Amino acid sequence: MELLKQKVISEGIVLAKGVLKVDSFLNHQMDPFLMREIGREFKELFAEEGITKVLTIESSGIAPGIMAALEFGVPLIFARKQKSLTLTEDIFVEKVYSFTKRETNEITVSKKFFAPGERVLIIDDFLANGEAAFGLTRIVEQAGASVAGIGIVIEKSFQPGRKLLLEAGYRVESLVRIASLEDGKVTFVEEE
Amino acid sequence: MELLKQKVISEGIVLAKGVLKVDSFLNHQMDPFLMREIGREFKELFAEEGITKVLTIESSGIAPGIMAALEFGVPLIFARKQKSLTLTEDIFVEKVYSFTKRETNEITVSKKFFAPGERVLIIDDFLANGEAAFGLTRIVEQAGASVAGIGIVIEKSFQPGRKLLLEAGYRVESLVRIASLEDGKVTFVEEE
Repeated sequence: MELLKQKVISEGIVLAKGVLKVDSFLNHQMDPFLMREIGREFKELFAEEGITKVLTIESSGIAPGIMAALEFGVPLIFARKQKSLTLTEDIFVEKVYSFTKRETNEITVSKKFFAPGERVLIIDDFLANGEAAFGLTRIVEQAGASVAGIGIVIEKSFQPGRKLLLEAGYRVESLVRIASLEDGKVTFVEEE
Repeated sequence: MELLKQKVISEGIVLAKGVLKVDSFLNHQMDPFLMREIGREFKELFAEEGITKVLTIESSGIAPGIMAALEFGVPLIFARKQKSLTLTEDIFVEKVYSFTKRETNEITVSKKFFAPGERVLIIDDFLANGEAAFGLTRIVEQAGASVAGIGIVIEKSFQPGRKLLLEAGYRVESLVRIASLEDGKVTFVEEE
């Protein structure tokens, strides 16, 4: 997605240890027009998948997720990273390790929002090791629903998440794929 | 906002101690069309305020916030509830007490996103005691920017937040105002 690539080039900041800071347009300040375009792009990519729900994880997945949900005309559910006092019914709980924050979170989704047979599109802002994405797929499958695809805004292609998800049989579409963040520089995966 | 009132009536669940559960359309599962209408409503209410930024707080403020930001054509910033490892520059930090969760969070916003003179619209999903809203106003004002208004999706008018914000001189617009949640029943504030 060219618009997103340009944003990464002009506003992304490469920190130490493979961290790409995109807090000016994606995960702290957000550009609503870019988010809308991201939603439209996911719609185009997964148009034939019969999506009935979009699932993401708080917080940075919510804006691209709601825009995708709007395009598909289906609800968005976001997984919470800790139990909430007002979630009293049965919930699905999965453990997800964050390499960036070096901590394990429990992600939770209320059971009532997925019915068997539903086709769920998982959306997240970043794909690196695939921990969050796998946690979300386990929740979908526990519900008897199926993962119709995984849509990622920025993929760190030098980390194993994509490969592991593909090996597990999932369709993964990433709007931008980054081959390397070495020497403080963003290098994209060459288009085929 | 009639559409929202209908959603509260048909899908809201009154729990003990003044808690209204709206997780089927606002803060766990989200209806993207309702979110878009909420964004349009805020645009209409604050159209004359010269808004340059929208500010909200993770996580449930993000969807209504991004839709409002889209209508105004300005960026959305969401305050984080804990420090992030990838936020390395100077940040504003404010303490906010949550009565629902009975805990104090530090909310943080990167300093670089607000310039003196900006007109900031604060959006949140709920207004009860006003703790979060006041925390956000303090951040805006520390930045030398001004609070152009506070837009709330659901106001618990039987709690003191609205009164305190009005007394402090802020303009508060709530799309739905709830007078009482007694006896397991939602009663709205009578329109004048």
